[in-house]
Amino acid sequence: MTTLHAAEWLNTDHPLALADFHGRVLVVEVFQMLCPGCVSHGLPQAGRIASTFAPGKVAVIGLHSVFEHHEAMTPAALRAFLHEYRIRFPVAVDQPGTPGPLPRTMAEWQLEGTPTLVLFDRHGQMRARHFGQVSDLALGAQIMALMLEGRE
Amino acid sequence: MTTLHAAEWLNTDHPLALADFHGRVLVVEVFQMLCPGCVSHGLPQAGRIASTFAPGKVAVIGLHSVFEHHEAMTPAALRAFLHEYRIRFPVAVDQPGTPGPLPRTMAEWQLEGTPTLVLFDRHGQMRARHFGQVSDLALGAQIMALMLEGRE
Amino acid sequence: MTTLHAAEWLNTDHPLALADFHGRVLVVEVFQMLCPGCVSHGLPQAGRIASTFAPGKVAVIGLHSVFEHHEAMTPAALRAFLHEYRIRFPVAVDQPGTPGPLPRTMAEWQLEGTPTLVLFDRHGQMRARHFGQVSDLALGAQIMALMLEGRE
Amino acid sequence: MTTLHAAEWLNTDHPLALADFHGRVLVVEVFQMLCPGCVSHGLPQAGRIASTFAPGKVAVIGLHSVFEHHEAMTPAALRAFLHEYRIRFPVAVDQPGTPGPLPRTMAEWQLEGTPTLVLFDRHGQMRARHFGQVSDLALGAQIMALMLEGRE
Repeated sequence: MTTLHAAEWLNTDHPLALADFHGRVLVVEVFQMLCPGCVSHGLPQAGRIASTFAPGKVAVIGLHSVFEHHEAMTPAALRAFLHEYRIRFPVAVDQPGTPGPLPRTMAEWQLEGTPTLVLFDRHGQMRARHFGQVSDLALGAQIMALMLEGRE
Repeated sequence: MTTLHAAEWLNTDHPLALADFHGRVLVVEVFQMLCPGCVSHGLPQAGRIASTFAPGKVAVIGLHSVFEHHEAMTPAALRAFLHEYRIRFPVAVDQPGTPGPLPRTMAEWQLEGTPTLVLFDRHGQMRARHFGQVSDLALGAQIMALMLEGRE
Repeated sequence: MTTLHAAEWLNTDHPLALADFHGRVLVVEVFQMLCPGCVSHGLPQAGRIASTFAPGKVAVIGLHSVFEHHEAMTPAALRAFLHEYRIRFPVAVDQPGTPGPLPRTMAEWQLEGTPTLVLFDRHGQMRARHFGQVSDLALGAQIMALMLEGRE
Repeated sequence: MTTLHAAEWLNTDHPLALADFHGRVLVVEVFQMLCPGCVSHGLPQAGRIASTFAPGKVAVIGLHSVFEHHEAMTPAALRAFLHEYRIRFPVAVDQPGTPGPLPRTMAEWQLEGTPTLVLFDRHGQMRARHFGQVSDLALGAQIMALMLEGRE
């Protein structure tokens, strides 16, 4: 069973779990606030997904998985970052890993770096991990395929 | 029955008809070679669709529907344009309309201007007409929905 | 003496000559209407120059130097192009060359292709020919250097 | 006499003063690491200036003037930011202001926010403060005008 190990949640008044999103396609944008590709590509794309698809069908959350410069990317700094960049979707802070610099969820999900966009289907199965850039056209198609899966 | 009335075809060695695309989703990019929005947005997007989806599933063609500056946008000029802009997909030249400046297919399909991206499903039914700009994310989703329709 | 050999002028009610621009820095954007780099880079840059610098100090004109697809890029087609792309500055149509496809001014000025941005100083001397892309930052500096030259 | 009050310098092995730049045009990019306009516009423009003009003629430095989210934009965080964004020019950390959130240099220079690009002439006089966005074309011209000033 895939789990998101959050030390803390921002942009939501209560902690969330992957199970809360069953019935919807879930997009998890895994990022670091000081990762240039996350700022220029990954996070804006996650924002476009959130505003393109109906929230009842596709959910978007962020996962702040810090594996470098830990002293710079604290939860307090992240809070300021989300405010300045007008990021409104819920964001989980990944739990520290033991041992080593890789945070726990990132390690368990075997992610290669940031940004990574992770897609879960309506049953909570992880279906894709896009490390780096993926085009909006391909991503739109993939999200729709998951939305329609098993519909009857 | 929807028909594409072509006076001439470019980028193909034989004339095509909408029926040739049954079984596939068909994207028709309706454009004019001297329309700035077609050059900056519509045609590049059509090119991205052609390179993103499998040709056996999604076909892309152009329809040159000239409703102004007819003297400037001749088939000879169009040929040079397609060469310079590296546009490889088949392009139909819309038949002249009678009477008036609006070409025949554009009039029959009740299109408002250029660029317009027209989507046909696998059975040849026109399903969407996007006049102006449509986002890659929404379009990718819509194309996939048509690809999966009625699959069993 | 450098001469601009115009077969025809558009966007002006009377023919112009390089001598008319003495006392000002002159920017000549050499282009072809079906050249993608001219449409995406060269002509927009020329437009930015025209709107950034005082017209009494820096003049901007276009030179349509067709060396390929002559049948497609006629003066009538150019007129439609300038209208659609909202290009307001005067544009000269380069005189046909004899013999060969290269137009006369382009040949005499020894230009390599399009787009080329040619700079003349306030005394009518050709000072730079930028073939392809030149950055706005470098170009702004170069134009200012010519504006200030020999001021006393 | 205009002074830059630095609490600390990064990207240089010794502290700098405005007087060190006399004889050159000096560009000071005033920014905050979590300011979106600084990241997308101001800092890349400063980088383009540094790579366009000869270092012996035009110097570029940054000034990190934090007036909000102080807890997030510490010198340690700034160090990580400069590393991730490949910013190589020297960066001063503005001294805290007393009282209030506005740092000392920012207050003395009467800056309105970030990003602000400040230009100094070769004699150390402040000549322009561009708050927000300024075009590369206008900026290139202005820098060249300062470079040529009083040359004989």
